Amino acid sequence: MSTLLTDHTPGQSRYGKLAQALRDRILQGEWAPGEVIPAESTLAQNYGVALGTIRQALSLLVEDGVLQRRHGKGTFVTKGVDGASMMRFFRFRGLDDGASITPHSHILSSRLRAASVREAQVFSMTQGAQVLQLERLRSLDTEPCLLETIVLPLPLFGALADSDSHGWDDLLYPMYQERCGVVIQKTQDTLSFSQLNATQAKRLKLAVSHPCVLVERQAFDIAGRCVELRTTRGDAYSFKYTAQVQ
Amino acid sequence: MSTLLTDHTPGQSRYGKLAQALRDRILQGEWAPGEVIPAESTLAQNYGVALGTIRQALSLLVEDGVLQRRHGKGTFVTKGVDGASMMRFFRFRGLDDGASITPHSHILSSRLRAASVREAQVFSMTQGAQVLQLERLRSLDTEPCLLETIVLPLPLFGALADSDSHGWDDLLYPMYQERCGVVIQKTQDTLSFSQLNATQAKRLKLAVSHPCVLVERQAFDIAGRCVELRTTRGDAYSFKYTAQVQ
Repeated sequence: MSTLLTDHTPGQSRYGKLAQALRDRILQGEWAPGEVIPAESTLAQNYGVALGTIRQALSLLVEDGVLQRRHGKGTFVTKGVDGASMMRFFRFRGLDDGASITPHSHILSSRLRAASVREAQVFSMTQGAQVLQLERLRSLDTEPCLLETIVLPLPLFGALADSDSHGWDDLLYPMYQERCGVVIQKTQDTLSFSQLNATQAKRLKLAVSHPCVLVERQAFDIAGRCVELRTTRGDAYSFKYTAQVQ
Repeated sequence: MSTLLTDHTPGQSRYGKLAQALRDRILQGEWAPGEVIPAESTLAQNYGVALGTIRQALSLLVEDGVLQRRHGKGTFVTKGVDGASMMRFFRFRGLDDGASITPHSHILSSRLRAASVREAQVFSMTQGAQVLQLERLRSLDTEPCLLETIVLPLPLFGALADSDSHGWDDLLYPMYQERCGVVIQKTQDTLSFSQLNATQAKRLKLAVSHPCVLVERQAFDIAGRCVELRTTRGDAYSFKYTAQVQ
């Protein structure tokens, strides 16, 4: 389905336009996440452009995180973000340093409601459009460690709204992909300090007003749209995060 | 002073050896931080190697953070880390989002003492060798915001031990470079949650046991040696940090 780029739009470079065409094919699912795309020479031939132009277009998509180059193996569609990454902000007692264990997930509640003004804005929805709100408790060895509120726009996540959460996986992002065709490609987490209210404290088996770290996440799909808002709370005494600058 | 690479060491690639030779010249100060290095073609000619070999050697040094490529401008010796980066973990009241203001620095005390076991290990010193320990208060508009303990190995930082801290700059890293020839090239900050003891609380004008974020830093020079240990404490309610994954 490759198209020859004969229609010149003023103000957009040839490779910029080519990048857009390739991005559209990826968004339409022609190549799945984790799949290798055709060789540069094949693409150049299909589009009737020079190899250098294809390379510039692919570089743009690599910069945007849509594609990933693997040395000697080719260019792949980004597989999406690891769903367990919230754990990187904490080091829970009894866990070895750097252990990457997926906590058990328990959906406490799931309900449909109208989007708030902010949610409608962030999700580019009409105000009052429906969202799915999940309350979720994550545990390690039956000990609760993270309490989460997750807000998802409809109809994109309609398949989850209609399904029984008892059968859901411990990791949500692979499930978003399987059931709703949504690939999470980027997350942005803002960390701050807070204290638990009575309900939150009870869920996490901690005292009311116990210090917690609050993680406010926006997750973006492969088209750059925000498709998930999440707030996560965990014991501040388990907070441990390493940041490098170079 | 370029040397021809005639002496072949088994087990090291030609470009690996070339990278080492270039790194040595940078460490010896032949090219200053922020300075452009000679063109690839010139270096290839000087060392009597192919352009591809020089490129591989430079790529290694870019990966290590010793060199930086700027598109269309050449390859530069890394300038070192911005000294104000501790502020990225906090958003103090009265400061606009994203404002990058350098807080005023006040050295509360400066003393020489023997290195602890851990310090000797981290700094690759003999146990009991001397370190310089600084206590430092950083303020915004006369309001204290960060309390720091900084430990520096001697004799590397001898020039600071001998000088009056009243004349010191608000940013330490440019001063390390000017006075001691030490370029900080990488920092690693580990964040956790803590509470202020009586002395710390008094310095920061907060209550005893007030929640704080503790930042434990190791700073590395251009040769990859740890040359600074720092612990920073700031009001947990001013903590705000954004982390991205993609």
